[in-house]
Amino acid sequence: MSWYLETGKDSDVVLSTRIRLARNISGYRFPSKMIEEERKEVAEQVKTILSDEKHSFMEMNMYVLPDADRKSLVEKHLISEDLAKGAVGQCAYISKDESISVMVNEEDHIRIQAMTPGFALDDAYQAAEKLAIELEESLPIAFSEKYGFLTACPTNTGTGLRASVMVHLPALTISGKIKQVMESLNKAGYTVRGRYGENSQAFGNLYQISNQMTLGLTEKNILASLSRIVEEINTLERKMRETLYTSAKEKVEDRVYRSLGELTYARLMGEKEALNRISDLRLGAAIGFMNEVNGKQLMQLSSNVGDASVQKMNHDTLQGTKLDERRAAFIREILTKTNEKE
Amino acid sequence: MSWYLETGKDSDVVLSTRIRLARNISGYRFPSKMIEEERKEVAEQVKTILSDEKHSFMEMNMYVLPDADRKSLVEKHLISEDLAKGAVGQCAYISKDESISVMVNEEDHIRIQAMTPGFALDDAYQAAEKLAIELEESLPIAFSEKYGFLTACPTNTGTGLRASVMVHLPALTISGKIKQVMESLNKAGYTVRGRYGENSQAFGNLYQISNQMTLGLTEKNILASLSRIVEEINTLERKMRETLYTSAKEKVEDRVYRSLGELTYARLMGEKEALNRISDLRLGAAIGFMNEVNGKQLMQLSSNVGDASVQKMNHDTLQGTKLDERRAAFIREILTKTNEKE
Repeated sequence: MSWYLETGKDSDVVLSTRIRLARNISGYRFPSKMIEEERKEVAEQVKTILSDEKHSFMEMNMYVLPDADRKSLVEKHLISEDLAKGAVGQCAYISKDESISVMVNEEDHIRIQAMTPGFALDDAYQAAEKLAIELEESLPIAFSEKYGFLTACPTNTGTGLRASVMVHLPALTISGKIKQVMESLNKAGYTVRGRYGENSQAFGNLYQISNQMTLGLTEKNILASLSRIVEEINTLERKMRETLYTSAKEKVEDRVYRSLGELTYARLMGEKEALNRISDLRLGAAIGFMNEVNGKQLMQLSSNVGDASVQKMNHDTLQGTKLDERRAAFIREILTKTNEKE
Repeated sequence: MSWYLETGKDSDVVLSTRIRLARNISGYRFPSKMIEEERKEVAEQVKTILSDEKHSFMEMNMYVLPDADRKSLVEKHLISEDLAKGAVGQCAYISKDESISVMVNEEDHIRIQAMTPGFALDDAYQAAEKLAIELEESLPIAFSEKYGFLTACPTNTGTGLRASVMVHLPALTISGKIKQVMESLNKAGYTVRGRYGENSQAFGNLYQISNQMTLGLTEKNILASLSRIVEEINTLERKMRETLYTSAKEKVEDRVYRSLGELTYARLMGEKEALNRISDLRLGAAIGFMNEVNGKQLMQLSSNVGDASVQKMNHDTLQGTKLDERRAAFIREILTKTNEKE
């Protein structure tokens, strides 16, 4: 089963945890400066280690992978938009359960990514580190005693570590407190982004919180600080949900159930509306008054309602009304299944 | 069973047909000029004929009937707002199935009303006329050889007949053609009103079409002309539904099913929203693609979602959120029952 269909610790607020480690091979320029031949060489070096039976990764050559597949990988956060451009030599190694992915010739030569459901920074870090150590044992990884791991962008130099946590903050968003929270996080050196892309507009009230700097810090420091910050946010969000529900029970239930109604019956549904209504279901399930939908179904919905995922599911490049029609049909299918099981 | 839970001829467009006959008793002034004593006398005269076992009418004295009950009778079109004011001597006789009602001391001394489901002008007329003849046989009804039946308002003088047909015109409304239709009807001497009250805003796309003049016309003329007009409107509406559905199948289905979703799941629902969403269900059922809800359930919904009906159902004078909560619960109950039956 795909990792993202599981639910983990603190799953009432935290959807998933992600660790990324950036590494580069000595003797090569950074990818932005490389010519095709150099990229091919780097790709070959990584291939010798990762494309064996032991790892059993799915190996994907971006240069030949169809457009919809690349976009779908982006939507699942398995690769970046940069890698999805699909230049010669860019490739990805993805584990069967999609919890591990390695990007080759993205901003750095190698970027290892490990994902877990729920709030599990240590688990995700250990999974990524294990693979990093394997690569370090076989390849001449660029490392400076003074600076640590060398990377294309100075913000990654040091540990090469970015730790991210995807949180669902409907109550902080509805109450308007999210602005204040985001400002404090930025001041404390964390980046907060909406679920989709770089813009601050968070469809579905999903936010990704990650560390900005790594230089001068140990991996342990980074993870411990982020962990504390996320615990605080979880507490804030939970309190705000309670306040919201206590002060306007009928309105909250009405909003959540209407979203269930729309998702269950609509024949056309856009991506943004779908994400926002799924957020309502997630809120109702977390508060506990709505038991028509379970955690697994919520993860299935969240992970698969994006445009590219729906296109891929249908092996097609649907657009507009046809795309919205298929999305609505997929959502109905998932929700109807749930109801039958219960 | 109440008459309005049945469906009749042309029920895809016509919800119901209503005939009203106005009669006055010789020797008394019209009600607007009467003092209490005179109203009591007129009420007594009518009572001698209608309050017997043969008719088995429910006899309702407006002066003592609770406010919510009177409002609910208005919502069901069993009495008028004028009668609901409840002055001394104002009363109503209502048949068990609510298809016949007689108002005493409204604008005229006696107003007989007969209602049928669907499009059935002749049936409704015969039911009203039968009762009018009974009254004429026992009471000195004011009649002039030159003008016909005498009434308080000159527009009713002659036959005292008002024939009304309640039509559901969602496609003409959505397409904007309704304005033109209403203008032509007005020019041809017909009144068109929204379902609720005198204003032109038609919640739920329900319109009542009725004749304006009766003087100089026979009952037969009036009924035949209205019949032709309604047939024309039925044809127009059906064509427009076909056009709408052919040109935007997905959007129409989406709209109808979303309304089903909202009605099935909402926890709070206002009167106006309820009527508009029920109109969507009625459209979906009439076009034929939606079979989750049947005609009887549609009539139950349409007839009972008004504020006063919901209050009466709960023996309460609920307002605001509490009222919207009960309305939503009632709607869910009706829709869930339907689904279970099928």
